[in-house]
Amino acid sequence: MANINENYLKLKAGYLFPEISKRVKAYSEKNPSAKIIRLGIGDVTLPIVPSVVEAMVAASKEMGTSGGFHGYGPEQGYSFLLKSIADNDYGSLGIKIDESEIFVSDGSKCDCGNIQEIFSTDAKIAVADPVYPVYVDTNVMAGRTGEIGSDGRYSNLIYMPATKENGFQPEIPKEKADIIYLCYPNNPTGTVTTKEALKAWVEYAKKNNSIILYDSAYEAFIGEPGVPRSIYEVEGAKEVAIEFRSFSKTAGFTGLRCAYIVIPKELKGRTKSGEEVSINSLWSRRHTTKFNGVSYVTQKGAEACYSPQGKKEIQESIAYYMSNAAKIREGLKKAGYEVFGGVNAPYIWLKTADNLSSWDFFDRLLDKAQVVGTPGSGFGPAGEGYFRLSAFGKKEDVEEAIARISAL
Amino acid sequence: MANINENYLKLKAGYLFPEISKRVKAYSEKNPSAKIIRLGIGDVTLPIVPSVVEAMVAASKEMGTSGGFHGYGPEQGYSFLLKSIADNDYGSLGIKIDESEIFVSDGSKCDCGNIQEIFSTDAKIAVADPVYPVYVDTNVMAGRTGEIGSDGRYSNLIYMPATKENGFQPEIPKEKADIIYLCYPNNPTGTVTTKEALKAWVEYAKKNNSIILYDSAYEAFIGEPGVPRSIYEVEGAKEVAIEFRSFSKTAGFTGLRCAYIVIPKELKGRTKSGEEVSINSLWSRRHTTKFNGVSYVTQKGAEACYSPQGKKEIQESIAYYMSNAAKIREGLKKAGYEVFGGVNAPYIWLKTADNLSSWDFFDRLLDKAQVVGTPGSGFGPAGEGYFRLSAFGKKEDVEEAIARISAL
Repeated sequence: MANINENYLKLKAGYLFPEISKRVKAYSEKNPSAKIIRLGIGDVTLPIVPSVVEAMVAASKEMGTSGGFHGYGPEQGYSFLLKSIADNDYGSLGIKIDESEIFVSDGSKCDCGNIQEIFSTDAKIAVADPVYPVYVDTNVMAGRTGEIGSDGRYSNLIYMPATKENGFQPEIPKEKADIIYLCYPNNPTGTVTTKEALKAWVEYAKKNNSIILYDSAYEAFIGEPGVPRSIYEVEGAKEVAIEFRSFSKTAGFTGLRCAYIVIPKELKGRTKSGEEVSINSLWSRRHTTKFNGVSYVTQKGAEACYSPQGKKEIQESIAYYMSNAAKIREGLKKAGYEVFGGVNAPYIWLKTADNLSSWDFFDRLLDKAQVVGTPGSGFGPAGEGYFRLSAFGKKEDVEEAIARISAL
Repeated sequence: MANINENYLKLKAGYLFPEISKRVKAYSEKNPSAKIIRLGIGDVTLPIVPSVVEAMVAASKEMGTSGGFHGYGPEQGYSFLLKSIADNDYGSLGIKIDESEIFVSDGSKCDCGNIQEIFSTDAKIAVADPVYPVYVDTNVMAGRTGEIGSDGRYSNLIYMPATKENGFQPEIPKEKADIIYLCYPNNPTGTVTTKEALKAWVEYAKKNNSIILYDSAYEAFIGEPGVPRSIYEVEGAKEVAIEFRSFSKTAGFTGLRCAYIVIPKELKGRTKSGEEVSINSLWSRRHTTKFNGVSYVTQKGAEACYSPQGKKEIQESIAYYMSNAAKIREGLKKAGYEVFGGVNAPYIWLKTADNLSSWDFFDRLLDKAQVVGTPGSGFGPAGEGYFRLSAFGKKEDVEEAIARISAL
């Protein structure tokens, strides 16, 4: 019985999504004939597009031939994929990112969870509230927080509330944060930010020697002009920010697993004695030591997302989901709900009816409408009284879910 | 400039394999016409077998259909794969492992690297020497060691030398180790252990409240009867051991990424105040928080390894590699080398010629025979003066490599 990492015991019982699964399972078992519609976990539903399937079929076959077999690949990702990312996701925005600044991985959840390892355990962390739980939980596990209080907040963690009162723009903290997690388009609120607001964050980071972890996993869902797609659109951001992107939502890769992070060469951390250290090199050491690259087959699939035909197919899927988002948004508004997001993001954030708590609203929706959403409080204390619906369902399901909610 | 995790700065410059790549690249650039034979990194060379390719092609196509699309899977792995593993890898040995005790991942390197996170940062670690560098490096990164000394050893780490003098069986430490890494069939020495020796380890672990991390990634290469395939063959081992397995070498998945670990429900850790905690639950929390499952396509491929036809095809690949191993072993013996391993493992471990250091021998072999191996000292100070050759090459290459080395 070796000693365990006791920081794990500080974690709230069960990660949000397993808890949802548990409640849904219990309900299904009691009501086996209920037709449950799941707009909870942000999982996609449309099939993988033909261009990607073709690329994966070809790559699988290739792996079965002597000449086409690929063993260990570069941990960082194959150059064919790195180049596609650099050209299409950044070059198109006029941002120059070198292949050596990109690290392909098996998911943004992993990247967001693992990145904290390369920073000091006494780094002070700031997160928006509500927030994607992985940012918080992985820092709890690493011992950067104290215990959780009765207010649902871990001590020694800076919470930046994002509520309707401040237009879901977390306020820049007065104190010094070493690491700041930002996510735009935002999960869970579905809202976006402005280039001006990002400029202020970059300035703050420069002034305070902070590093911004910028999660833009939902960038592909931006529909309106002027909304920033990358933090690197802000001058000087390369000196202070790491960016996270994923194929999960963009191209439906939740079951295939491919994502990447960008760590510009300009980005430095420092030792306690004040020496500068390249964050790119530090992450490279972590990535090559603890990770062995993404499946060649998956990387070929990811590459196909950037072909002209692949792009067209993926855009059609995104348009489908965003048409769902519009239906949820408008339908709920008509039903009297106060709704946010859903314009440049596949999530709709709503105030619960009758001032119910998020979990009570979850239970009511499951019980009365057989619709599964995500309780806002699962994303942080400031999410209490809110609820997230995802636009990733099938059109018919979304329509029926909204009809059922409207009928309540 | 946030503060970094300074433990990273204790790491030796460059992980072993990148260093090899660098030297080979430099040599190739100077000698562009040299035909280099790589028996260094333990990467496989045979194509993926037809049963697996077929399963992956079918799964890729399935992902492109409305009815067959799979999004987020269970983080722990699909039941179809967990069941195949439990039945085939353990049931066949008379060992009962429940599906909930298996966690499918994207590689043993990741599992071996990540597992230490759930233990206390002051856990005392014991590793064989020589050893797979990932065990050591990931504990250095987590701060469980001090600095590296001029003898190549990190302080506060228990090294258990495995040399020809003790038949490559590391001696059980006199002091108390909390976590012990064992690997059989062994990488890098290619040697195996006995059930009696494992019994002694299990007894030690019980007496000292230690946990054994048992890496049996090369189990499939065991050819002789009586050699233990799983630590769970030893009674009581479920109370003290975690086992690591991989499809990488068994089925050539180095470029596809699939592995698993077994954490029996009986295995407990404890808090400093003496409370028992389930290691299975702890790892489950880690796995579901920082990982999002292995690609559905890859898991279908892994499942196909267990079909009767899949097993037959994989056995043919293993026989091919083990025939290489015999050629290397016998060829080197004939050339006057002292060799070990290569009977139940795809690695041959040899004493360098002329008492050269491992890296000098590496350079000589690269320069004079254009053969790339792995310097024994890269696996730890007790590996100095040894050299590893891998049997994963192509038959013709292995034959030519041995001919070239013999001619030196």
